[in-house]
Amino acid sequence: MEKISTDEFPLTMHSSEKQETICIFGTGDFGRSLGLKMLQCGYSIVFGSRTPRMSSLLPSGAEVMSYSDAAQKSDIIIIAVHRERYDFLTELTEVLNGKILVDVSNNLKINQYPESNAEYLAQLVPRTHVVKAFNTISAWALQSGALDASRQVFICGNDSKAKQRVMDVVRSLGLTPLDKGSLVAANEIENYPLQLFPMWKFPFYLSAVLCVFFFFYCVIREVIYPYVHGKRDRTFRLPISIPNRVFPIAALTLLALVYLPGVIAAILQLYRGTKYRRFPDWLDHWMLCRKQLGLIALGFAFLHVLYTLVIPIRYYVRWTWNNRTVTQAITKKEDPFSTTTSWLRDSYVALGMLGFFLFVLLGITSLPSVSNTVNWREFRFVQSKLGYLTLILCTAHTLVYGGKRFLNPSDLVWYLPSAYVIALIIPCTVLVIKFILILPCIDKTLMRIRQGWERNPKYSESALNGKTDI
Amino acid sequence: MEKISTDEFPLTMHSSEKQETICIFGTGDFGRSLGLKMLQCGYSIVFGSRTPRMSSLLPSGAEVMSYSDAAQKSDIIIIAVHRERYDFLTELTEVLNGKILVDVSNNLKINQYPESNAEYLAQLVPRTHVVKAFNTISAWALQSGALDASRQVFICGNDSKAKQRVMDVVRSLGLTPLDKGSLVAANEIENYPLQLFPMWKFPFYLSAVLCVFFFFYCVIREVIYPYVHGKRDRTFRLPISIPNRVFPIAALTLLALVYLPGVIAAILQLYRGTKYRRFPDWLDHWMLCRKQLGLIALGFAFLHVLYTLVIPIRYYVRWTWNNRTVTQAITKKEDPFSTTTSWLRDSYVALGMLGFFLFVLLGITSLPSVSNTVNWREFRFVQSKLGYLTLILCTAHTLVYGGKRFLNPSDLVWYLPSAYVIALIIPCTVLVIKFILILPCIDKTLMRIRQGWERNPKYSESALNGKTDI
Amino acid sequence: MEKISTDEFPLTMHSSEKQETICIFGTGDFGRSLGLKMLQCGYSIVFGSRTPRMSSLLPSGAEVMSYSDAAQKSDIIIIAVHRERYDFLTELTEVLNGKILVDVSNNLKINQYPESNAEYLAQLVPRTHVVKAFNTISAWALQSGALDASRQVFICGNDSKAKQRVMDVVRSLGLTPLDKGSLVAANEIENYPLQLFPMWKFPFYLSAVLCVFFFFYCVIREVIYPYVHGKRDRTFRLPISIPNRVFPIAALTLLALVYLPGVIAAILQLYRGTKYRRFPDWLDHWMLCRKQLGLIALGFAFLHVLYTLVIPIRYYVRWTWNNRTVTQAITKKEDPFSTTTSWLRDSYVALGMLGFFLFVLLGITSLPSVSNTVNWREFRFVQSKLGYLTLILCTAHTLVYGGKRFLNPSDLVWYLPSAYVIALIIPCTVLVIKFILILPCIDKTLMRIRQGWERNPKYSESALNGKTDI
Repeated sequence: MEKISTDEFPLTMHSSEKQETICIFGTGDFGRSLGLKMLQCGYSIVFGSRTPRMSSLLPSGAEVMSYSDAAQKSDIIIIAVHRERYDFLTELTEVLNGKILVDVSNNLKINQYPESNAEYLAQLVPRTHVVKAFNTISAWALQSGALDASRQVFICGNDSKAKQRVMDVVRSLGLTPLDKGSLVAANEIENYPLQLFPMWKFPFYLSAVLCVFFFFYCVIREVIYPYVHGKRDRTFRLPISIPNRVFPIAALTLLALVYLPGVIAAILQLYRGTKYRRFPDWLDHWMLCRKQLGLIALGFAFLHVLYTLVIPIRYYVRWTWNNRTVTQAITKKEDPFSTTTSWLRDSYVALGMLGFFLFVLLGITSLPSVSNTVNWREFRFVQSKLGYLTLILCTAHTLVYGGKRFLNPSDLVWYLPSAYVIALIIPCTVLVIKFILILPCIDKTLMRIRQGWERNPKYSESALNGKTDI
Repeated sequence: MEKISTDEFPLTMHSSEKQETICIFGTGDFGRSLGLKMLQCGYSIVFGSRTPRMSSLLPSGAEVMSYSDAAQKSDIIIIAVHRERYDFLTELTEVLNGKILVDVSNNLKINQYPESNAEYLAQLVPRTHVVKAFNTISAWALQSGALDASRQVFICGNDSKAKQRVMDVVRSLGLTPLDKGSLVAANEIENYPLQLFPMWKFPFYLSAVLCVFFFFYCVIREVIYPYVHGKRDRTFRLPISIPNRVFPIAALTLLALVYLPGVIAAILQLYRGTKYRRFPDWLDHWMLCRKQLGLIALGFAFLHVLYTLVIPIRYYVRWTWNNRTVTQAITKKEDPFSTTTSWLRDSYVALGMLGFFLFVLLGITSLPSVSNTVNWREFRFVQSKLGYLTLILCTAHTLVYGGKRFLNPSDLVWYLPSAYVIALIIPCTVLVIKFILILPCIDKTLMRIRQGWERNPKYSESALNGKTDI
Repeated sequence: MEKISTDEFPLTMHSSEKQETICIFGTGDFGRSLGLKMLQCGYSIVFGSRTPRMSSLLPSGAEVMSYSDAAQKSDIIIIAVHRERYDFLTELTEVLNGKILVDVSNNLKINQYPESNAEYLAQLVPRTHVVKAFNTISAWALQSGALDASRQVFICGNDSKAKQRVMDVVRSLGLTPLDKGSLVAANEIENYPLQLFPMWKFPFYLSAVLCVFFFFYCVIREVIYPYVHGKRDRTFRLPISIPNRVFPIAALTLLALVYLPGVIAAILQLYRGTKYRRFPDWLDHWMLCRKQLGLIALGFAFLHVLYTLVIPIRYYVRWTWNNRTVTQAITKKEDPFSTTTSWLRDSYVALGMLGFFLFVLLGITSLPSVSNTVNWREFRFVQSKLGYLTLILCTAHTLVYGGKRFLNPSDLVWYLPSAYVIALIIPCTVLVIKFILILPCIDKTLMRIRQGWERNPKYSESALNGKTDI
């Protein structure tokens, strides 16, 4: 065993044991960044290049060689060139035989090519073990250490030993490998960095449609109607008053839409008498984007709270209150105090605040790091029990807000009821059906179905086991 | 080395190397979900079943066999049947000899059986390596990929090689294994999914008791008293005014209770003159649930802020302000402006807002993902320094709120002081003791004790080493 | 294979396979805590001590021996003594030959010694494999299980096999090892637990300077000026009114400073015509602390919102509004309603609220657990697109707030413009330059430069590859 010498290259490894060498084909941004990171974590790096000259851009401590020379130095070869240039590898089939080729490439568009880059590479150089990895990591993040976005490295490949070796490399760089299976998963992995919030698309468009619809509904009732019937200019309601009608309606509707699919699923299971039939695709997709629907609803609720709290500092509101007081002072008439009004107004405000508080709690527990620390029972308790309580409070808030004016004919404008009346339809429906579903007789049947019981066991031969197996 | 063929089954692994086979006993929901997930991650799956017929519910690509046939195909056998049916395994002792049995079962109640399911399994089939795993994962989450709740898989077992192999499987499914030691830990692991916020129980009940007490205290002073002495109906104070007295009191008291155990611990250490004696159990438990106490306090503070900010849009408040203005206008008397009053009122509001701001900061740093990115020095800085600053600001907020009225005899109602006076007792006590503890002379002694010094070293023989070892 | 016996020591491992033994030198707090944790996770523990007597403080199940006896029992020896006492190891060179020494020590000050403790240890006992680990973990956290702060264990060492073995131990304790490379990284690892928010220092001091400057600026304009010109006492503005001018200014300026370095970097790249030259150090450092700048800006924005929402419950504000109303009632003059004023006021409030909403969204996505679940495209979309939208909304909020009064000479006090006018300089500059940069002609050049194109390719020989490699 030799004495440990002082280091020539910072952060490289000097040891009795020969350090592992990794070969990188291509000296572009990503190749260089990856090479530098690997050098820092104790690997030897050999770059393979068309023009094997040392460049000041390459990390010091690395070597540059021709492709075939570099390939001979290591079992693991990282292919950091664009798919369009993969052809050159066909000339190296001899030297690449049996080696692990790591495909790190990304495309510019989703499903740009018929097959994934990694599968294309595997066809091109057959007698190698192609592993897809590192494509979700950014060169800039590797260089700066600011891995704010994901540290997860998705990995797939057909050879499990090759995958295991690449995963060890990933781990030693301080990243988290995630095995996604065989090379057919490469397509999904290559599309991943090109996605832009796929789960948020449906909730986002839905809420946009909701907002636009209710915005124009309120504009018709509160701006166009007073203008047509009396030439009054109410456009000053556009910046705050009307958004503050749209936001709570959107929040309540979206919150109800979070719980509607669960209720529909329960009805379907009761009707079919079995849980062993798949739900329709739209229901499956809806159930998977409930979290996103709920978070958008929380956003609207937050805006509603902000827009409500600024009411007393608005010019229009202060002008109205001021005028009312001045009129009372001039006519020397004081309003009598109404305990009922006070109760009604305070109740709906209090219900709204409690509902918002629980809603914020739900939002916090849906943060990945928080939901990771709870078990399933706790997660279901929060998302189901507290969720329904939130829905009940928010629906009650809207109901009490309506109070006596509810469905009052004098509130109709061009036969249109107030917007909040429409907003109550879905939440009230969900709550009524849920109430029916938790009646003991129905709840018991549903529980039995969910534990594997079938009313008409033709759908599944495994019903027998379904009852006793986990 | 053979050419990589095109895949027949999506996501399964085809490779020169034989892919690993895992056997699953039981074809219930969980067994099937786990099997599907494992197939997707490149394992071969064989189901063992009493009635070995292929079912449309089983994942395509898996085989179904009798128990004994299935067991022969793999070293790792996942026992996905209920504990009540484990008996059938006794007939398979021959074929199970030396195999790794993975117990994935859960119970319906905490400590339902005298021994854990995994230990029972180990007794039943002695010459096997029983590993407890996967019981914290939900079948639905495995299927949908929506692993919102924990990705952590708790693992225990008496054979470390068997554990290691199961942990490799867990990792390759994209889950995080967490070794909990030998099989005696199985009991704890089986109870885990049945727990419902165990650390939150004491803080929750404590705050419920606090709220109920102060609610009735305020009802007596502000609703019952005016009714008895003057028949005035003040019930309209119930929805907002009285909760808005209870919430800040609960918040301040709970925040003080976060810092009280630390102060008590310091006094105990000073009194005993050593740190080598255990604290009483109640103090230990109290110290471990400080975070929960603090978060509940933050919840109350948040509600207090909301309830305070809606004050100007409340009917009662607007009616009062309006009437006062009308009276002034009629009597043509204007209030003179008092700079002192303005200073006092603005100060207590500003102190409260700054306190709330720091409190929110404390809450954010207690999020698991945030506290994971700070080192211990930073964590202590935030939770101790910023925490005490928050307590000081909130206590000052309440003190200045009291202002001149403080302990004013005219404020007594049936000899009861205002609720906020009572709320100040614990925070002021904590702050005064803490102030004494950080006096140089006392702080120095305490520091020496915490570094291992003993006033009377009879309690520990390792005191000698305690001073020089880490 | 023997029958599994009932356990004598809870949580220890009994298996056919001999359990691994780990030796710990030193019986201080940390050594004992680590030993207990390792016992619980199935290791055999031998303590080495100067005074090898069993103590009630040592975890039951562990043995205590002299240093040389203990060292012979295990390959892995954890050196849990202070650096000052490392000398005694020189006497043990014989028995330590080839063993893995784990240095867990910390210092009291950053860069206290010329070389790191681990490197000092490696020099002292040459023929061993020194691995730095565990120094970021707290003894109290190990004991209580409350690993709130980091579970990450930084590891470095010159021998990769030794490192691998220590990393396996770390993983089996439920902690996350992070390989930091060779032993020269020990210095950084030892400094880590002594750091106090190093990335926050510059943003913190910058914002402190901003706050102090604008506070005194506003005090001069709003407190000193009225006192000098009219002897009016406006000190009551100090607790809320003036902070509520400082907070939004600080928030807007800091938010603009988040986007300024990106704009400067783009100009530099355009000017140089290449991306292959390093940015100046100050720009690099500035770019790395953008997240911290943004979060501090969010804090100020949050305070601004709070301070604004309490306006209507402030004594001074209510007194002013009240007096105005009384005056109007006495003189029997009512203000006419101005639609323009209402539009202007509501617009700036609405812009501010929307800006704050987006700002909170940005803050949430910068939480580590949230940013870990998005890919780079999504992260850039949120931080760049939504970020600029936030900046635009907040700048517009301030511009509309100014409204007609903007640069009005009558608003000048001692030739000083209103504070918000100064606050607008940086945001408007950033937005104007950014607008110029996204003009098609300039944007195209910039994109080409960022993809590796060089106007004057003398700076880099790898330009050829830069265009085709990743």
